[in-house]
Amino acid sequence: MTAELSAHQLIAQHRPTLDQALEAIRTRAYWSPHPEHPKAYGENGSLGMAEGKDAFDALLGTRLDLGQPGTDDWVGEEKSPYGIDLGVAYPHADLDVLLPAMRAGQRAWRDAGAEIRAVVCLEILKRISDRTHEFAHAVMHTSGQAFMMAFQAGGPHAQDRGMEAVAYAYVEQVRTPDNAEWTKPQGKRDPLALTKQFTPVPRGIALVIGCNTFPTWNGYPGLFASLATGNAVLVKPHPRAVLPLALTVQVAREVLAEAGFDPNLVALAAERPGEGIAKTLAVRPEIRIIDYTGSTAFGDWLEANARQAQVYTEKAGVNTVIVESTDDYKGMLSNLAFSLSLYSGQMCTTPQNLLIPRDGIRTDEGPKSYDEVVADLAKSVGGLLGDDARANALLGAIVNPDVKARLEAATGLGEVALPSREISNPEFPNAVVRTPLIVKLDGAKPDDESAYMSECFGPVSFAVAVDSAADAVELLRRTIRDKGAMTVGAYTSDEEVEQAVQEACLEECAQLSLNLTGGVYVNQTAAFSDFHGSGGNAAANAALCDGAFVANRFRVVEVRREA
Amino acid sequence: MTAELSAHQLIAQHRPTLDQALEAIRTRAYWSPHPEHPKAYGENGSLGMAEGKDAFDALLGTRLDLGQPGTDDWVGEEKSPYGIDLGVAYPHADLDVLLPAMRAGQRAWRDAGAEIRAVVCLEILKRISDRTHEFAHAVMHTSGQAFMMAFQAGGPHAQDRGMEAVAYAYVEQVRTPDNAEWTKPQGKRDPLALTKQFTPVPRGIALVIGCNTFPTWNGYPGLFASLATGNAVLVKPHPRAVLPLALTVQVAREVLAEAGFDPNLVALAAERPGEGIAKTLAVRPEIRIIDYTGSTAFGDWLEANARQAQVYTEKAGVNTVIVESTDDYKGMLSNLAFSLSLYSGQMCTTPQNLLIPRDGIRTDEGPKSYDEVVADLAKSVGGLLGDDARANALLGAIVNPDVKARLEAATGLGEVALPSREISNPEFPNAVVRTPLIVKLDGAKPDDESAYMSECFGPVSFAVAVDSAADAVELLRRTIRDKGAMTVGAYTSDEEVEQAVQEACLEECAQLSLNLTGGVYVNQTAAFSDFHGSGGNAAANAALCDGAFVANRFRVVEVRREA
Repeated sequence: MTAELSAHQLIAQHRPTLDQALEAIRTRAYWSPHPEHPKAYGENGSLGMAEGKDAFDALLGTRLDLGQPGTDDWVGEEKSPYGIDLGVAYPHADLDVLLPAMRAGQRAWRDAGAEIRAVVCLEILKRISDRTHEFAHAVMHTSGQAFMMAFQAGGPHAQDRGMEAVAYAYVEQVRTPDNAEWTKPQGKRDPLALTKQFTPVPRGIALVIGCNTFPTWNGYPGLFASLATGNAVLVKPHPRAVLPLALTVQVAREVLAEAGFDPNLVALAAERPGEGIAKTLAVRPEIRIIDYTGSTAFGDWLEANARQAQVYTEKAGVNTVIVESTDDYKGMLSNLAFSLSLYSGQMCTTPQNLLIPRDGIRTDEGPKSYDEVVADLAKSVGGLLGDDARANALLGAIVNPDVKARLEAATGLGEVALPSREISNPEFPNAVVRTPLIVKLDGAKPDDESAYMSECFGPVSFAVAVDSAADAVELLRRTIRDKGAMTVGAYTSDEEVEQAVQEACLEECAQLSLNLTGGVYVNQTAAFSDFHGSGGNAAANAALCDGAFVANRFRVVEVRREA
Repeated sequence: MTAELSAHQLIAQHRPTLDQALEAIRTRAYWSPHPEHPKAYGENGSLGMAEGKDAFDALLGTRLDLGQPGTDDWVGEEKSPYGIDLGVAYPHADLDVLLPAMRAGQRAWRDAGAEIRAVVCLEILKRISDRTHEFAHAVMHTSGQAFMMAFQAGGPHAQDRGMEAVAYAYVEQVRTPDNAEWTKPQGKRDPLALTKQFTPVPRGIALVIGCNTFPTWNGYPGLFASLATGNAVLVKPHPRAVLPLALTVQVAREVLAEAGFDPNLVALAAERPGEGIAKTLAVRPEIRIIDYTGSTAFGDWLEANARQAQVYTEKAGVNTVIVESTDDYKGMLSNLAFSLSLYSGQMCTTPQNLLIPRDGIRTDEGPKSYDEVVADLAKSVGGLLGDDARANALLGAIVNPDVKARLEAATGLGEVALPSREISNPEFPNAVVRTPLIVKLDGAKPDDESAYMSECFGPVSFAVAVDSAADAVELLRRTIRDKGAMTVGAYTSDEEVEQAVQEACLEECAQLSLNLTGGVYVNQTAAFSDFHGSGGNAAANAALCDGAFVANRFRVVEVRREA
């Protein structure tokens, strides 16, 4: 095969970026090669705003032929949370044809070595980046995120997470040299001397099981970590969020082919409604790695049953924010209001339980009672979302009917401090848009506990009255231990309380944001610097991204001979 | 607590060694800080030969009081494979007292940080090293290894593997900085700025389940990897091989206390006969990491049932050597003879199946028929072990009655090419000493397949006649895939065959030694350079030592706040 993209060319183009990524994961200072602003696109080969929209529109109602072997049917019934039918048909695979085909190219991909694999992955990410505007619409119309969030979280932030995975994968593979000379002295006799070769080898085919809400952001780390470590990758998207990952697979296949590799190293496994293909795939012997984002029930099932595979899961947790005291009451309220509102709380990182002492809190505006804090927070959310245009831009749409049903049921769980409001979207009249609901609960009441100790995914938060700061920390510990947590937040100006919260997070293994009052929110993490999840509590068995996320996706085979 | 060993002192003493270890795992060149020669000991505080023997003798018939909390009884019925009763009594623990006590010191150990933990571990290893002569007798009289092997494999080589684990653990923890300043530009507005702290946190209590044959060598990697990453470590030795690990625990507790840490961070869990404490411990919620060496059945059970823990297993495999052709027939025979004889084949790395084309092989001494190769190998083993003193020094003793029974049963599996010979040990008349048995089998016969496709642990090898080199490679692949392999060897002077064997090992993920004819043997691996196992086939789910062996023993908790 003649490669249109030479190794030399790819290394020349992407090695400097890889080196910057490697430096970023060492220092964990701010870095991103992917611009966040929509206007930064449209030149140097990237699609501009209008072009991206046109490209997306052109996809609607078409058949996305990826040229995959073993395609026995065409499937796809995506309906946008904004109310439009995407009408895109995707290949449905005969696994007994597709899986063997995916293995055919693995030897060449393995032999290419870690650096070539890394730069090929970076070329894939570059081309995805160039199509960020197109992907933004695809993410928006599958996840229900508002455009700006779909653009940023589904575009540059997802690409950052993918590149971070490539950087970790690369550095992990080159920790062991390709070759070593080993000479062991033997006193007066000749030394023993061996020549050793070390080759990173893939585990096999990796399966990425995508989610509905963040198809690219949650899909890219596993996809790129597995591909960069030499594995073939089969992408099984959520049936409601196929398009962003199908486009990703399309780009990956293009780049692989142009670089002289077998495009079947990356493939899509779209499914018929109700087919439940993830369960079938997860226990196929060819599948040796699984990355999954979704429900705790299926994540637990994968961990227990996909025994032939390394399984990386991000499941559900219950996220807590302790509100104990603050030097910036206004900043706290507006920061929290934004966190609760962003994407209608449909993030695995959105705070659910706000623990507030029932005797109130100290603030720079004087003492505030529990009721005042809850009312002020409700007012703050109300203010933030008072303008419908702004509300639509922040909330996006409710991703599916289950979330809507859960929101409606939650009004019955306790006293409603802030009712959820229906908002109309003039551009997409069928979109279901809702503001966050805040319900008051009592931490000491067993009835209330069954509510706040379960994940209520969607725009629902509980203002839980607790006896004291110590009680809050104890409940925080118990929540992390029993339910897991992707994020923890705390507001306190008391050093002892701060220490206690920190110690709880260190012992229960959860990521803590302290006293955020500005433009960074507890539910956001930045690639190359923040870890997403800890991998040490029930919410997720892996963190994005660390050494453990990549180190077991490949093994090193040593061949030694006498020198 | 006042520390007798200051952090400053420990760093000054051990940091240079740590740095050398870090360099060694990067280059994988030869390195060891632990002398292999018995005469290298006896000065600078280390026990010499006679002192070591005296120290060991002084332990016999005593109670080894480790000062552990919750000791409710004294247990121990070790009988040396050399025929003497050790008579050492060990603490039996009330787990409901011991386990909570082990957690008490974890916070201080966590807060000490990666470097202090590493140098404390190196101090433990230094003191073990100083007592190498004493440990040698303890290993000899529990494993049945001959003295010289017990000295080297149980002493410096085990210490090397422990230090290698410390080095990997250290470097993994310091990949992420303790602190980071993150500043994200916001165009014309003020940048977003966060201060981030990153803390490696332990998973909890780690359980090391020791084995009978290599209590220190196989026990140290897990023990030191877990301790160095901040975990407490509970050591559950094999009931027949308690002493070497009990001494290890004793040293670790001493050093921890002197360095100002809680000695209960390391404890021993000795058991009553038939108590089966490993199974109980393995599913305790406090146990979050398990390192195990032993049978496939129990290893598989652990992987399936100890779901609350990270489980690292080394189980059984079937090791193959392909004998296809050679440029050094004599060297090959003597190298193989040594490999089969060392410690009576009671190594997880000893070759079991020698695949030899039924039409014979090409050698530098002309063509040799299958029968000639087998007869010459039998002669070579016979010659190596012809002298009883030398045979005793090489074979050691049969570790337990199961191995003896298996050896006796194996004579009925096929035509015996080399019968196993009983050797008397003048110093230990009750020792059971046997030379290796070689049985001829036919690779094409289904009846024979049931023999060569099972692990027959002990001094038993099968000379399996195969149709061709290609047939040998195919059988090698099938054996690794179905049974796993800790080692693979091959002798070939044909480049195509060499390529085919290499490719089989790369694809099936097994460590390959090619054409060894000198003083390095397929069953030996050197820490800092060779990987022991691959972690990618059924024989073991982990390799000693790589990033994956340490990366998931801790997690990193991030605390971020506005700058």
